[in-house]
Amino acid sequence: MTTTNDYSPGLEGVISNATTISYLDLDKEEIVIRGYDLIELAQKLSYLETAYLVMHGKEPTQQEAAALRKTLSDQATLPPEVYAMLKSLPKQTHPMDALRTGISMLAGYEDPAILNDHHPEPNFAKGLKIMAKAPVIACNAYRANQGQPSIPADPKLGFTENILWMINGKRPDKESVDMLDMVLTCYIEHELANSTFTARIIASSLCDIYGAITGAVASLKGPLHGGANEAAAQMLVDILQKGGAAKAEQYITDIRAAHGRIMGFGHRVYMRKYDPRAFLLKDYLPRLLHKKPEGEEMYAIYRKVEEVMFRETKLYPNADYPIGFILYLLDVPIPLFTPLFLCARIPGLIAHVEEQHKENRLFRPRVIYLGPRELHPEKAGAGR
Amino acid sequence: MTTTNDYSPGLEGVISNATTISYLDLDKEEIVIRGYDLIELAQKLSYLETAYLVMHGKEPTQQEAAALRKTLSDQATLPPEVYAMLKSLPKQTHPMDALRTGISMLAGYEDPAILNDHHPEPNFAKGLKIMAKAPVIACNAYRANQGQPSIPADPKLGFTENILWMINGKRPDKESVDMLDMVLTCYIEHELANSTFTARIIASSLCDIYGAITGAVASLKGPLHGGANEAAAQMLVDILQKGGAAKAEQYITDIRAAHGRIMGFGHRVYMRKYDPRAFLLKDYLPRLLHKKPEGEEMYAIYRKVEEVMFRETKLYPNADYPIGFILYLLDVPIPLFTPLFLCARIPGLIAHVEEQHKENRLFRPRVIYLGPRELHPEKAGAGR
Repeated sequence: MTTTNDYSPGLEGVISNATTISYLDLDKEEIVIRGYDLIELAQKLSYLETAYLVMHGKEPTQQEAAALRKTLSDQATLPPEVYAMLKSLPKQTHPMDALRTGISMLAGYEDPAILNDHHPEPNFAKGLKIMAKAPVIACNAYRANQGQPSIPADPKLGFTENILWMINGKRPDKESVDMLDMVLTCYIEHELANSTFTARIIASSLCDIYGAITGAVASLKGPLHGGANEAAAQMLVDILQKGGAAKAEQYITDIRAAHGRIMGFGHRVYMRKYDPRAFLLKDYLPRLLHKKPEGEEMYAIYRKVEEVMFRETKLYPNADYPIGFILYLLDVPIPLFTPLFLCARIPGLIAHVEEQHKENRLFRPRVIYLGPRELHPEKAGAGR
Repeated sequence: MTTTNDYSPGLEGVISNATTISYLDLDKEEIVIRGYDLIELAQKLSYLETAYLVMHGKEPTQQEAAALRKTLSDQATLPPEVYAMLKSLPKQTHPMDALRTGISMLAGYEDPAILNDHHPEPNFAKGLKIMAKAPVIACNAYRANQGQPSIPADPKLGFTENILWMINGKRPDKESVDMLDMVLTCYIEHELANSTFTARIIASSLCDIYGAITGAVASLKGPLHGGANEAAAQMLVDILQKGGAAKAEQYITDIRAAHGRIMGFGHRVYMRKYDPRAFLLKDYLPRLLHKKPEGEEMYAIYRKVEEVMFRETKLYPNADYPIGFILYLLDVPIPLFTPLFLCARIPGLIAHVEEQHKENRLFRPRVIYLGPRELHPEKAGAGR
């Protein structure tokens, strides 16, 4: 058995690095982003304006915001070989794995001298390409899974609008675009989440930003991280199919009795406080229920699960709980929830990779060794 | 500016986790692998025998070693879509990036239920598939880069022999196979290297082993990590082309004067002691020089650079320095040096992912925030 006297499992409470990007202030219950309250940003700025702030540490002027929008629009294309790769994947491939493969593949399209230049300007230029192309990969990976033809980004549509467009080829209504935009902003940056930590560690070997973000996609797929929004929505659907709100309490009780995990509740850092993002977003739920015939019933399930979970565990919802439900109401397919979380987080990842490369120190901690010592081989001799 | 009073940059000296896999014992100058001295293992066991030990914590019987060899041979195939992806990559794609993309892509070929089952048996089964297929991807990514046709693994050849076979389609001599086998063993596992740390962090979100190893490939590409063997060999070639051993001292002096970095010397953990792997391998160099016409001259360069570096910096070579030269003498193309390091490390990565999944705690450290506070947005208004 391991002892925990000499280290903190999961590096809980350990300081990994200094940053000027973001901070979870538990005392003030504030997600600080470059000095601003994320909740205020989500209400007052668009996702792209917030993205500029996250990456550059200042609000964009109108010209700067317009330039960012144009760069992302210009770069929202994929080489035909990436489309071909997506179409060649087995149909069971999770879009998150397809997104990881696609971002990894894109590294080869950079001139190697630029790929390995970790100064701010090339890092931001490469990062914006990844940010522009990631939703195109994600949505079209899903479409390829479904045997549907690709839908490229439409240069006439904005960044957020294009995401909904590429999912199903329908022009989205303003209410849906505004709601998704706020969701993307809520996901944009969150201090040293597991995926952000992954990106910084990879960047610290002086690997390039494509590698760092590829690793972050891998991390974010995990159900203890980004995979939670998918799991939370899937649970609501399961309860709906098994009898609706009247069955919600039994459903939760059964899973907990079997030591199963209910996703979308609690958070390592917030512990027993309300995630400010979940607190903001829950108020938007009632006005979206009309978008699906089952909206009202699922909202009843949603509230019942929250009530039971709080009564039984004293855990509040985290951002993934309302976001899973919102994306469902916006008709986003569940397998795209985690990929869209990743897409939304890219400005934060770019900022962290840039900060890591600017003042780098290779991440290389040590271990406590609890295995045997002083053994010597007896040659088994089965060769190589 | 950051202060370093409250944290250790790069987590230097911080304990990240307990392990029974390996430990760098600086007092005894020993790389402990499951209780054994790695240097003794490299001299007495084959790479595959050591791989079994790393993964399972015990030496294999002859039957177990033979079974491992058979599994790896059976699994050393690639889906045609992966070959097609490799051939579709831009020619400038580094084989390390191609290997990362290929391993990521393979996740889709697992049944999702098995992909997301993190118990030991499915984890080892998936890990061995990655171990078997990684050299096939790496060698054939390089061949695709060169416009050469693919060479699949030959089921009649052993694991190590197949690597040399797939590079150039020539039957390798026993001396080369034995030497490469020892190099692979030296690279097999090394406590919490940046790539191993990356794999554990990704695994801790309960992402699957394909994601964890994909992230490790990204990390290992960095020149502060696996990229060093490529850089070290490239330096020797550069010096040869610029006048040979007589110019070596000036070459090193010039780079150091320009604050450039000489790769292959020093190591975060060993600091000012000799890396035991480099100490072992340097004695094998003289007997390999006959393999290349320029062997003797490069060995003179090799020794001169080591002498100058020790005189000027008191740094000893790390494993990447002799290994870079050995792989060059074995006619392995330089762009494959880092991919082969990754392939060699896979048993260690499998063991760490398995250990992380067995007793998991999500990695999620904190930061020191040094940015501004109490800012409020002025709506720029360029929309989304």
